[in-house]
Amino acid sequence: MTKSKELSKASVARLQLLLELLEQCEREQRQQITSSEIGEALGISAVNVRQDLFRLGSAGRPRVGYDVSHLIDLLRRLFDLNRPKRACIVGFGNLGRALAGSRIWDKAGYQLVAAFDKDSSVVGMELDSIRVRNISEIFGVIRAESIEMAMITVPASAAQEVANMVTAAGVKAIWNFAPVKLQVPTNVVVENQSLAWGLVALSHRTKQVGD
Amino acid sequence: MTKSKELSKASVARLQLLLELLEQCEREQRQQITSSEIGEALGISAVNVRQDLFRLGSAGRPRVGYDVSHLIDLLRRLFDLNRPKRACIVGFGNLGRALAGSRIWDKAGYQLVAAFDKDSSVVGMELDSIRVRNISEIFGVIRAESIEMAMITVPASAAQEVANMVTAAGVKAIWNFAPVKLQVPTNVVVENQSLAWGLVALSHRTKQVGD
Repeated sequence: MTKSKELSKASVARLQLLLELLEQCEREQRQQITSSEIGEALGISAVNVRQDLFRLGSAGRPRVGYDVSHLIDLLRRLFDLNRPKRACIVGFGNLGRALAGSRIWDKAGYQLVAAFDKDSSVVGMELDSIRVRNISEIFGVIRAESIEMAMITVPASAAQEVANMVTAAGVKAIWNFAPVKLQVPTNVVVENQSLAWGLVALSHRTKQVGD
Repeated sequence: MTKSKELSKASVARLQLLLELLEQCEREQRQQITSSEIGEALGISAVNVRQDLFRLGSAGRPRVGYDVSHLIDLLRRLFDLNRPKRACIVGFGNLGRALAGSRIWDKAGYQLVAAFDKDSSVVGMELDSIRVRNISEIFGVIRAESIEMAMITVPASAAQEVANMVTAAGVKAIWNFAPVKLQVPTNVVVENQSLAWGLVALSHRTKQVGD
């Protein structure tokens, strides 16, 4: 159910780069930033920056620029990073474990509350405060814990079945690492994560330096 | 050493989305695509699409559009995906293992040829045809194997030391998963990978559907 105000993928990517830039400014205790500075850092025109920020609801002041912490606040609200959303991991292999132990959850406004696997040698494992449960419990746990997002890190062959289970239990968002296009109800959002993304960018940038 | 022809991060992100779209077209055996179709799929204006493609060196034909396989070829060359570049992993924990076993390397034009860890319980492990070596061997192996890229998946506290070692041995590109800003010689490219990236996009899109 795409709404007209939904941002394009390209805009979301650009605004995430902007948020990273602003957080960097905040760490350096800078309070203001101009559209030209933003444009130069991100490689887009100052005019496009002003359009983006105007749509976001912020007008800069001539020769002073934009208030860094105000922009951060607008972007965090746009991305819904302040409300802690309850999440689970399905598939506790290497990738599931690596992500369970990472700091990404807080950063993106999620709280990891459960993990599932079908492998009996993994079920019962504990990582931080999460204990891995048998996948047969998934429906009940998602309901009882009001989990709204499932990260899927199972093999491609099992991913659709997992998607069916979690959406039947009420999950509204899936972060999918399996290389397969999932079929889900229209009110469920799927974000397919490609890890090759950063690697392709690196390849491109290395070539530029070498040329 | 930024050159004037280096693309901005935002452009690289946009053109990667375009490549994914075109590969999807190719799988569906579509031979032509118009700038309006591309613009609609990526959420950018047809004018911007035509500018991007013109800079890339491709002119579409009125009412026919662009040749899909030609555009794919241009983008693959832009991203340097055709030349197999030799890579190694430093840090063979959960994330290192997950990525070693994934299909990303081929996709981004890399060939994984070595892995290193300092943990004696990990050294000697084999995954596909890669055997994990002791990190003390890193200098000699990078030289002997002509490795040009190192993926760093060690804890933040060890990442700078690893970066020093691999660049001293001749590595020209680093794919960095450690949450730390690495200091490297000016002719070395560092791509910092944030896994929170897709998660933030998911958070945003879920909020839009829920509103």
